[in-house]
Amino acid sequence: MQLRSKFKQFGGSLEYYTHDSHVNNAPMTFSIFLPEQIKNTKLPVLYWLSGLTCTEENFMIKAGATRMAAELGLVIVCMDTSPRNLGIEGEDDSYDFGSGAGFYLNATDPKWSKHYNMYDYVIDELPELIQKHFNVNDKRSISGHSMGGHGALSIGLRNPKNYLSISAFSPIVAPTQTPWGQKAFSGYLGNNVDDWNKYDSCELIKKSKLTLPVLIDQGTDDEFLNEYLKPELFQNICEEYNYPIKLRYQHGYDHSYYFISTFIDEHLQFHSSHLHNI
Amino acid sequence: MQLRSKFKQFGGSLEYYTHDSHVNNAPMTFSIFLPEQIKNTKLPVLYWLSGLTCTEENFMIKAGATRMAAELGLVIVCMDTSPRNLGIEGEDDSYDFGSGAGFYLNATDPKWSKHYNMYDYVIDELPELIQKHFNVNDKRSISGHSMGGHGALSIGLRNPKNYLSISAFSPIVAPTQTPWGQKAFSGYLGNNVDDWNKYDSCELIKKSKLTLPVLIDQGTDDEFLNEYLKPELFQNICEEYNYPIKLRYQHGYDHSYYFISTFIDEHLQFHSSHLHNI
Repeated sequence: MQLRSKFKQFGGSLEYYTHDSHVNNAPMTFSIFLPEQIKNTKLPVLYWLSGLTCTEENFMIKAGATRMAAELGLVIVCMDTSPRNLGIEGEDDSYDFGSGAGFYLNATDPKWSKHYNMYDYVIDELPELIQKHFNVNDKRSISGHSMGGHGALSIGLRNPKNYLSISAFSPIVAPTQTPWGQKAFSGYLGNNVDDWNKYDSCELIKKSKLTLPVLIDQGTDDEFLNEYLKPELFQNICEEYNYPIKLRYQHGYDHSYYFISTFIDEHLQFHSSHLHNI
Repeated sequence: MQLRSKFKQFGGSLEYYTHDSHVNNAPMTFSIFLPEQIKNTKLPVLYWLSGLTCTEENFMIKAGATRMAAELGLVIVCMDTSPRNLGIEGEDDSYDFGSGAGFYLNATDPKWSKHYNMYDYVIDELPELIQKHFNVNDKRSISGHSMGGHGALSIGLRNPKNYLSISAFSPIVAPTQTPWGQKAFSGYLGNNVDDWNKYDSCELIKKSKLTLPVLIDQGTDDEFLNEYLKPELFQNICEEYNYPIKLRYQHGYDHSYYFISTFIDEHLQFHSSHLHNI
């Protein structure tokens, strides 16, 4: 594990790392914000999953989250959205497939399956690495934006014992029914509908036995709302299956980090209330 | 004046504009954050001057300032650090001269003097434009980072009636004695020492009649501290001339926006206490 850079911020330390991922058979990068309190006590971790094209940098630079994380004593970990520079044909051809668009799944298509295993990376490999190298406890929550909102919801719903709370901004809640998800799932998973459903939050709700607290914020002026996101599909299925969620429509906000920055403090406080009180 | 983009953030509006600058004889860009309160009341303005290479975007994306500005009812205006794409020979050759490095002065060298008049732009043209198009009052403060810290200090000291307070992060306080300033001043101003001194904060202190509140934050791990910044030169001359300033050394912080983000709230509160109470 190689420390690439390190910055003091809000009394804590923001650090950028590269390491060899064995589940992705490739180097991966992540960033971690370590509040000052970590010198004296083990802290819980919020895993942040970014959207299409993002690296581990975007959230740390744009969300303005570390101020509140420092105050609450919350470690934040952000990972890159895929492995990169692998020489796979077409990996850099589009913004919504391949590099920067790992979709937080384990690919089964032979072209991608050796390197695109972001699901295992988020669930197992990265938390183990963080646990080993930093003074964190075993309490985790998960959050993300857009494609990363899909990741946070689907991973949280499938692994409710691993996390204490889930939140999302502008998530892709029904990837099997919307264009970004359909393109990614057919490319990474082929045509097997059962495989697709394992990563679709609307489908996963139907099988959920354990209920986690879920907070979702969605801007009403989001340019992707009606065609790509469709949060109402998730709300309806949650109501049908009695899975309580809090979905808030935020008037006039779009899909950008300016939107995320506005409500990130409330998400951190939401996660902290679950991470620090159990 | 053309609105290029607009984002809702913290209940207010973050807007990016392009307009034809007559003092620079070129298109210029700026960003403005308008807190929600501006719908009902005229608000004061903080002018932010960025450092080398920055555009009007960097501060708005990276500083995390708009949250507190929304709370305090403070408009923030950021301008690009120079005109760009003018076809002047060599304008894009280096990061510290030409494009992105206007140094907040009026160039006298014939090659630059038609377009590089950022001093007049900051003092007169931009405030007039802001006053004309937005619901602001005539109270202004000024702040900036690095080259922009030089801009904020030198412009504030030369025009104390225009501003109610000055602050800076990691400012170039003595451009005539340090490499960035020497390169820029010789290029834009030629060899006339009197011209150089008009833009050197250490020199300007000697002639200051009106005293403004001044707050400066400087990271102790700033990689440019000892060769390029030398804040002690400013502190010494301020003491000698009985000009009270507050210079704080922040232990372990560097030259980056991670540093700025950590202390920007205190700068906004400092300016607000002067802008809202007079």
